[in-house]
Amino acid sequence: MFGAVIHAPGDVRYEERPDPVILEPTDAVVRTVAACVCGSDLWRYRGISPVPEPAPIGHEFCGVVEEVGADVVSVRPGDFVVGGFNPSDNSCPVCRKGAQANCLHGAHYDGAQAERIRIPWANGTLVPTPGMPDESLVPSLLSLSDVMCTGWHAAVSAGVRPGDAVAVVGDGAVGLSAVLAAVQLGAGTVIAMSRHEDRSRIARVFGATHVVAERGEEGIAAVRDLTEGIGADRVLECVGTEAARAQAVGAVRPGGTVGLVGLPHGDLPMQDLFWRNVGIKGGPAHVRSYLPHLMDLVLGGTIEPGLVFDLELPLSQVAEGYAAMDQRRAIKTLLRP
Amino acid sequence: MFGAVIHAPGDVRYEERPDPVILEPTDAVVRTVAACVCGSDLWRYRGISPVPEPAPIGHEFCGVVEEVGADVVSVRPGDFVVGGFNPSDNSCPVCRKGAQANCLHGAHYDGAQAERIRIPWANGTLVPTPGMPDESLVPSLLSLSDVMCTGWHAAVSAGVRPGDAVAVVGDGAVGLSAVLAAVQLGAGTVIAMSRHEDRSRIARVFGATHVVAERGEEGIAAVRDLTEGIGADRVLECVGTEAARAQAVGAVRPGGTVGLVGLPHGDLPMQDLFWRNVGIKGGPAHVRSYLPHLMDLVLGGTIEPGLVFDLELPLSQVAEGYAAMDQRRAIKTLLRP
Repeated sequence: MFGAVIHAPGDVRYEERPDPVILEPTDAVVRTVAACVCGSDLWRYRGISPVPEPAPIGHEFCGVVEEVGADVVSVRPGDFVVGGFNPSDNSCPVCRKGAQANCLHGAHYDGAQAERIRIPWANGTLVPTPGMPDESLVPSLLSLSDVMCTGWHAAVSAGVRPGDAVAVVGDGAVGLSAVLAAVQLGAGTVIAMSRHEDRSRIARVFGATHVVAERGEEGIAAVRDLTEGIGADRVLECVGTEAARAQAVGAVRPGGTVGLVGLPHGDLPMQDLFWRNVGIKGGPAHVRSYLPHLMDLVLGGTIEPGLVFDLELPLSQVAEGYAAMDQRRAIKTLLRP
Repeated sequence: MFGAVIHAPGDVRYEERPDPVILEPTDAVVRTVAACVCGSDLWRYRGISPVPEPAPIGHEFCGVVEEVGADVVSVRPGDFVVGGFNPSDNSCPVCRKGAQANCLHGAHYDGAQAERIRIPWANGTLVPTPGMPDESLVPSLLSLSDVMCTGWHAAVSAGVRPGDAVAVVGDGAVGLSAVLAAVQLGAGTVIAMSRHEDRSRIARVFGATHVVAERGEEGIAAVRDLTEGIGADRVLECVGTEAARAQAVGAVRPGGTVGLVGLPHGDLPMQDLFWRNVGIKGGPAHVRSYLPHLMDLVLGGTIEPGLVFDLELPLSQVAEGYAAMDQRRAIKTLLRP
């Protein structure tokens, strides 16, 4: 089969790779229906994270089960499934707490930008749709594999409650998903911090009540102007850079909480957080925990998180998918074999 | 009148000070019925925080209102009152969010280890009891001025929920109060980390289900042994030292939360917190937010947080009160004029 391999920063190739096979009785092999490129893949593409040797890449997918190991009972060949980017057995003590991203048997996999993929802990990781979903729902179902659940995780980690004023730092696909999550969780005011016309348009479609184009101190002041002068109850930090984290901490009110899902680069001002009673919480998303509920919302037509995909390419053009996101010509690239 | 003045590390004197008077129409003057020495007072007494010049000290009190300014309507002369260590108007946008420790008009006051004290923002700060409380309740009412509310704040900040496994780092008066708070909030397992017989006895009285005497890595391992091997859902950090904070972060499970109320000394491992999805939240306690509920629990006999006082002295012997706590001969000293 063919799949994407990152050889070096800026160098992603579509090339022949071994067909995945069942290695453990808890494995499944899934034929990809759609995959995509993640903002976190760009860390390596941009040379910010190392690429020590050529490696398969990609961790978001939906597809159809082709084969299962002897111990797999929750899905069968022919099922349409979505799986999270972080495999989990969904039964260990940590999973039972709802923290599946930190499953005691968890693993990280790369290589989902491919025609097929081996899924470990298939019973715990894969969630099937009831029957074959309509083609139009594929982008939204694909988004549940990571980006929408990551935006949801930002909102859940921050503790968004009905009526809250929420500000979202970052207008990438995760930030936009976080806007949608905050709205779904009942936030009263949802401020998207975005200075790109195309992205703020989607934020509005997702339910943002305000868009703030300013950044840094000016952006913080603009958020305060919308929140009785004190800052937002919850801020969802969906970038991870030092500047974005500082903006998030500055935009939250005393006693509020910052949900963090951007891969963390740079420190946080611990003394300031303490004296202002500002909480922080976040990390890799507990996709498996959120998938059933969000799948219901997608299948029922309540949310359409797939709108974050604004470029669709054949999987064979995966290199162009990376280039378009790197150059900000696309928010997020959907790939089909 | 007379009151305590800290002149230098180790040097607290009971000396004549000016009688407090109404300076603002929102002030009240309270005659002290009981005051006490706080663990945070010891930072200066021990020379860890600076003492640039002699200063009145003490921020915990209960007493009887003697005089009120023209704008004070919520209490009257003769009322028995408890006030938090952080005055708040209880009406600004931040106070209305329940974050009174960060009141926009907040101030810090020292000098409550005295015969009388001037209270700013009396409407917002002071909470009266219905009638004159029984003498036996005075220690518990006094504890609501800071220590019990600070323990409660640790538990609320950590998000303790019914059934949670909670570990408490620190067996001082705040840590013991945090044990009581966790129990009241419905925690199923409450692990007091204590190696002092007298203190762990009080922790048991307050409802701790387990006492762990080990510290550091051994203490963390002992907590994990009691929590399916993964760590506590919530850890309440009531010390503030680097060692205590590291112990708290080590003892919490993936996806759990650490409530912080110890004055923060030393950094936290931000990358580790992120990848383990561990949240942190805390700071100075929102006493005014918690006071009415906790006062009800005290007056109704549900809780007796005043048990943390194991030494009572005349206010004139305040110096001995500090020395006893510094030398760990007392958990917490109650002072009466």
